[in-house]
Amino acid sequence: MSNFSRDPILLTPGPLTTSLATKMAMLRDWGSWDSGFNAVTGMVRERLLSIAGAEGAHVCVPLQGSGTFAVEAAVNTLVPRDGHLLALINGAYGTRLARLARMMGRRVSTLETAEDVPAAVADIERLLQADSSITHVGLVHCETSTGILNPLEGIADAVARCGRHLIVDAMSSFGALPIDARRVPFDALVAASGKCIEGPPGIGFVLARRSVLEHCAGNSTSLSLDLHDQWQYMERTTQWRFTPPTHVVAALSAALEAFDAEGGQPARLARYTRNCEVLVRGMEELGFRRFLDPRVQAPIIVTFLAPADPRYGFREFYDRVRDKGFILYPGKLTQVETFRVGCIGAIGPDEIRHAVNAVRDTLAEMGIEGAAPG
Amino acid sequence: MSNFSRDPILLTPGPLTTSLATKMAMLRDWGSWDSGFNAVTGMVRERLLSIAGAEGAHVCVPLQGSGTFAVEAAVNTLVPRDGHLLALINGAYGTRLARLARMMGRRVSTLETAEDVPAAVADIERLLQADSSITHVGLVHCETSTGILNPLEGIADAVARCGRHLIVDAMSSFGALPIDARRVPFDALVAASGKCIEGPPGIGFVLARRSVLEHCAGNSTSLSLDLHDQWQYMERTTQWRFTPPTHVVAALSAALEAFDAEGGQPARLARYTRNCEVLVRGMEELGFRRFLDPRVQAPIIVTFLAPADPRYGFREFYDRVRDKGFILYPGKLTQVETFRVGCIGAIGPDEIRHAVNAVRDTLAEMGIEGAAPG
Repeated sequence: MSNFSRDPILLTPGPLTTSLATKMAMLRDWGSWDSGFNAVTGMVRERLLSIAGAEGAHVCVPLQGSGTFAVEAAVNTLVPRDGHLLALINGAYGTRLARLARMMGRRVSTLETAEDVPAAVADIERLLQADSSITHVGLVHCETSTGILNPLEGIADAVARCGRHLIVDAMSSFGALPIDARRVPFDALVAASGKCIEGPPGIGFVLARRSVLEHCAGNSTSLSLDLHDQWQYMERTTQWRFTPPTHVVAALSAALEAFDAEGGQPARLARYTRNCEVLVRGMEELGFRRFLDPRVQAPIIVTFLAPADPRYGFREFYDRVRDKGFILYPGKLTQVETFRVGCIGAIGPDEIRHAVNAVRDTLAEMGIEGAAPG
Repeated sequence: MSNFSRDPILLTPGPLTTSLATKMAMLRDWGSWDSGFNAVTGMVRERLLSIAGAEGAHVCVPLQGSGTFAVEAAVNTLVPRDGHLLALINGAYGTRLARLARMMGRRVSTLETAEDVPAAVADIERLLQADSSITHVGLVHCETSTGILNPLEGIADAVARCGRHLIVDAMSSFGALPIDARRVPFDALVAASGKCIEGPPGIGFVLARRSVLEHCAGNSTSLSLDLHDQWQYMERTTQWRFTPPTHVVAALSAALEAFDAEGGQPARLARYTRNCEVLVRGMEELGFRRFLDPRVQAPIIVTFLAPADPRYGFREFYDRVRDKGFILYPGKLTQVETFRVGCIGAIGPDEIRHAVNAVRDTLAEMGIEGAAPG
């Protein structure tokens, strides 16, 4: 490592680099039955709702575990046992959504597009009109397997026009990209503590439409993932149903304070957009090319094509950049060799510039003269 | 609060008071794909196995979420879809075990005893002989709803003699009470980071018999809680399948170092036993009486009967003790008014003595002359 006291900068889409103030909130032990802790939980739930303008029709139900646990909980609780989910797929997280719904025994159909192609609103609408048995649509807002942005607003409107229910995996977009529940109709929107809110990982949460969730008792085949039960218990007692990761909850609360202090979602989007611009410009100067068309690229994570130079190998490239203090992210595509660089976390354009410089030095060390993908 | 810089001492059975060194391990951001972090995970898995002498026949599969998530994962993964679970119940956690197994669609029978009576080995053996369809037995080792210790060794032998499989919820006993997988046959033993290992909550783990787990693909109706898939992925990649709570993993590793430095399970049991003795003696001097017969009391958490004095009310009692720096735990019994005091966590007899003194002062403030239950 290039230094002895600082952690490497995480250029990954969660876990990501958090601020020291957020981490220091974990230096306290909270009793999960105590009113002081329950006040923190209540505050976190309210702030998360307000980020999506969802205080009116929705409730926030936090859940222990990774983001996928919360996605699974949303599907298991909101889709009735005889429901039918249409999963929109253009990456690994859409595929996972379909898989977990099938495993719990729900009927699932899929609409798959190429990994660089967003789902088309017209196709979805046609499918919904053709199959009246479909009750729910599952959408991944920003697919971090590539960084592609799917058209949430258009899809939400189409699903609502067809009288169906929408479940959104907004894991890597919530807090950064604008999502307004007053304009964008959804029954559930799922995200997690360790993404654009810049908290530590360990908690997912679901913004669920109250009038829908109220009628979801008995749907879930899992006790741990039963969002209705989790919600009811929390409303009744202000406590978590099962032991919460108290330190993570406290840090999420600190992260939300920093989020507000920075200027909320617009400020965060502005910083991440700047990070993304500095990253792309710097990497393109080195010869790298993006996998996605810029028009469908979210400023969350960027997929770069691997250099064609035979001296390039991801493992060595990763290790050398890591030794300089920056953690890159491997690619997740099967057809083409890529790697990914995240733009999110408690970092700014300075850290991104340093990272690009480290990539430049690494290419030189490896004897790679141009990073073009051939 | 009686002081301005220290957290209250948590006399609760998890979350509990952790050491500052353990909490400080959370001041780092780890990349979940990075080899440094994966080495931490590997070390944690090995150490947890070794605490139960389970390195030979078992593997350790950690899981995101609370302990209940891991119990549910063990049942969903190890009990085949056409299996039949006998749940032994003498408290809230046994009831929960039966409930989560029913929700996932498994056939469940129960053997229930009073909350102050351990399950009898002879009764279990008779039941297993009478019903050959029972494939699995689920046991809560130490029921923290009262603090009662169930006879793990005798039950494990009986289940093995009858050729059935045992799943043990050892949430609040693992690390403190001796459990030796070389002598006590079990297919799965479940515990969590935030109990007697004295880490922060956020991770459960299952010590699963390798020869059994190998044949459990396809059992689970939950993707997030599929222990076989979690295990296979971790073996193949050294990484967690879905985003782990990295800070909690790092703190658990630090907690395990402290565990070893203290002298492992025997030293921890000795400290908790001393805590329990000091607590019981001090509280009995004040007039309090225990709910359980001392012969079935584990040195983990003690249930005390509420004083008969009409001036006693738990809410006021709790708040006043809390203001002095100690967090008690409410009772969980329906028939009789009680409260609980935990003996576990990074605390010793000094903290327990201070807590008893705070209880004494509180009784005096409330005008309660003797704490006898009448």
